[in-house]
Amino acid sequence: MSKPTILISNDDGAHAVGVRKLISIMRKLGDVVAILSEKPMSGMGHAVTMQQPLRTRLVAEEEGYIEYITNGTPVDNIKLGKHLILKKTPDLVVSGINHGSNAAINIIYSGTMAAVLEAAIDGIPAIGFSLDDYSSLACFDHTDKFIEAISLKVLKEGLPKGVCLNVNFPAFTEEGPHGIKVCRQAHARWIEAFEERQDPYGRNYYWMGGHFENGDGRHETDLKALAENYVSIVPAQFDFTAHQYVTELNF
Amino acid sequence: MSKPTILISNDDGAHAVGVRKLISIMRKLGDVVAILSEKPMSGMGHAVTMQQPLRTRLVAEEEGYIEYITNGTPVDNIKLGKHLILKKTPDLVVSGINHGSNAAINIIYSGTMAAVLEAAIDGIPAIGFSLDDYSSLACFDHTDKFIEAISLKVLKEGLPKGVCLNVNFPAFTEEGPHGIKVCRQAHARWIEAFEERQDPYGRNYYWMGGHFENGDGRHETDLKALAENYVSIVPAQFDFTAHQYVTELNF
Repeated sequence: MSKPTILISNDDGAHAVGVRKLISIMRKLGDVVAILSEKPMSGMGHAVTMQQPLRTRLVAEEEGYIEYITNGTPVDNIKLGKHLILKKTPDLVVSGINHGSNAAINIIYSGTMAAVLEAAIDGIPAIGFSLDDYSSLACFDHTDKFIEAISLKVLKEGLPKGVCLNVNFPAFTEEGPHGIKVCRQAHARWIEAFEERQDPYGRNYYWMGGHFENGDGRHETDLKALAENYVSIVPAQFDFTAHQYVTELNF
Repeated sequence: MSKPTILISNDDGAHAVGVRKLISIMRKLGDVVAILSEKPMSGMGHAVTMQQPLRTRLVAEEEGYIEYITNGTPVDNIKLGKHLILKKTPDLVVSGINHGSNAAINIIYSGTMAAVLEAAIDGIPAIGFSLDDYSSLACFDHTDKFIEAISLKVLKEGLPKGVCLNVNFPAFTEEGPHGIKVCRQAHARWIEAFEERQDPYGRNYYWMGGHFENGDGRHETDLKALAENYVSIVPAQFDFTAHQYVTELNF
């Protein structure tokens, strides 16, 4: 079998430690094309660039590896990768490793997972990897063997149509994770707060902040798996329909 | 009963004809707070602003109506509205009327629907309204009575927990829509194409384009309802879990 083609993106920008780790792991598994945003794109969700043109810069070209930097979002990068750079469908799309958890409702704000969902919309097997540690110098040493095993399995067996994987790692510990749990997105959310400041001209401006609140007592959620030092895998999809209410609602 | 408080946002910017129409309809139903982006935010998906601070400008204050312009995204606007401006939970969030359909996969790219989903995450009844006509001078005259009826029903009865509505109108015709169909998100998607141009310095840049492809032959989809001149209502939710695969996938 010829080497698989693997497309990589992320949302922490091209210089993030997490994406460098992911690139190094994937180069062992196939021919890699990394298409990365020049600026951090955390919290960009499924944004696409429609108000301005996109630009790409080739910054690395080696045996089995090319890398582009763009002014686009993670979703733009997947579209650019498929249509403009590869001009074919990659065998696998991976995104991350995100500095910060994309468990629970974080998936909807995440550029990292948006890239993965975008690939799934196109029918490409896709996996997002995130670490429950926001630090720019977070340790990813416990993630390698899991990322390699999960990626090899998906390369070999594929994924169900329209399904991608949201993989989250607990923060580094010497002992490492206890194992993997396939689970559900916890129904937990951000409780926002805005910090108010004044600029030198007396005008207010605001920084969004807040804390995360988990009101989901169910077993088998991603947050519970992470709290118990397991790697969580949520099979994710992009159909927003609340199917049970299609027949129940009357208008 | 006291007048309900209705929070409005959109993704076409403060000057769009569609949001002006929506504001005029909602002012008949309750006290209205409109929080609108100064720039168009089409295609911004569920983006939130984390790299720069947010600013707000009060631009209208009348009996039963206030309006703010912000530098944020539609999702930022819902968060700002709830926590900073209203300082309470509104009775209803509405978004739109979007210039362009948010049926099928468009929901995932849509700032208009992201505002609605954000409200649903917070447990607020929320409805997004969109018109299957991208023109900036599109005619919305056939939408009033439906928007009023749907909104009044939701104000009175609420919506199931975590569920919001994605309402799409067919483009204007003299006869008007045949009625309403509650339906599913069609599994249809964009086939992208990039237009390549050169700047005066000889560097390439790209505009994203493409066409929409509906490969979904099922009955009771939003695209089918629109094609048959019905108003489509998809009950939508924000749990991305592909529940049927939680037990089926082994890792």
